[in-house]
Amino acid sequence: MDEFDPGNEEIMEATFRALGEQGHRNLTIQDIADEFDKSKSLLYYHYDSKEMLFADLFRYISQKFLEELQLTEGSPKAQLHHLIDRLLPGTIDEERYAAQVALLELRSQIPHVDVYAEQYTEIDSLFKRTVSDIIRTGIEQGQFHEVDPEQEANLLVSAVSGMRTRRLTSADFSVEAARQTLFAHLHTRLFKETASYE
Amino acid sequence: MDEFDPGNEEIMEATFRALGEQGHRNLTIQDIADEFDKSKSLLYYHYDSKEMLFADLFRYISQKFLEELQLTEGSPKAQLHHLIDRLLPGTIDEERYAAQVALLELRSQIPHVDVYAEQYTEIDSLFKRTVSDIIRTGIEQGQFHEVDPEQEANLLVSAVSGMRTRRLTSADFSVEAARQTLFAHLHTRLFKETASYE
Repeated sequence: MDEFDPGNEEIMEATFRALGEQGHRNLTIQDIADEFDKSKSLLYYHYDSKEMLFADLFRYISQKFLEELQLTEGSPKAQLHHLIDRLLPGTIDEERYAAQVALLELRSQIPHVDVYAEQYTEIDSLFKRTVSDIIRTGIEQGQFHEVDPEQEANLLVSAVSGMRTRRLTSADFSVEAARQTLFAHLHTRLFKETASYE
Repeated sequence: MDEFDPGNEEIMEATFRALGEQGHRNLTIQDIADEFDKSKSLLYYHYDSKEMLFADLFRYISQKFLEELQLTEGSPKAQLHHLIDRLLPGTIDEERYAAQVALLELRSQIPHVDVYAEQYTEIDSLFKRTVSDIIRTGIEQGQFHEVDPEQEANLLVSAVSGMRTRRLTSADFSVEAARQTLFAHLHTRLFKETASYE
């Protein structure tokens, strides 16, 4: 995946804010410039079109998402718990909310923008691989029941992904109920009673 | 939910085609008029802004989605199978693909457009209620294991919803694997061996 240039982070934060306020649809580069504290010419120097800026935004958000997929120390059980905590936190701060809204907006453009499609395909695969690797390790260590790691990862990734989108798009969605649903599923289907959390 | 006026169906089909070709972002009402076979003045007569047209498109797509949620005859097991067949078919024709892309695009605008938010919240709730009602009936009839109907519906709705979005946004996504995953889950977790398909 193309690397995101960390020098442009403040521009990305301004883009988040502009997106959070009025959405993707009618956003102009001027709206983003309005949210950007530094010299506007700096913005125009880096990005001469909205398309370039959004392509970089996708890189930036992808990188943030990949950071959330980084495994923590601990048993496979703890790793799955932490992953759900990071991807579906009980409460969500403004910046993360803006990032999730922006990711949803960019994802919705994937059928029309090839560069987004390539990037998202990579993210989706990595997400699935991360989960199936944890499950495989859990089974090998005798802590998880003998499920099909690929199928179980497919179900979990789809459910978490669906919950993240439902959280943004349905007013009645309860993240607490969603988390309980996931943890209950893992405890029934995956974790043996003896599975260690440490 | 507001009713969609069926007299405008051909306009909606033209909107799908225009959306399928170039996406939401820069779409003008003229692009839609270009896809519309009948008099352009008819289009402008019905919709004097893109916002009004998209609000109606959301109604139209919502109605199509609600039709897919209609229960078929048969046992609870058959009903869940058919629901997955309709929501996640093995192959997808052009019109349905365009409808799913359009729904994703409109969903991505929900954080910014209240009228979409209300509509989608209703769809999401109805989807979940449809699934939990089937599960409850299956348990009452002694065909399903005694799961928590709400939690199981929450998991299934999220997984199906996530799979529908992943199908549109990840090139590596296999709908066949996704369907197998769902059916395997239902057979392990929900259906008793004696559950009737008829």
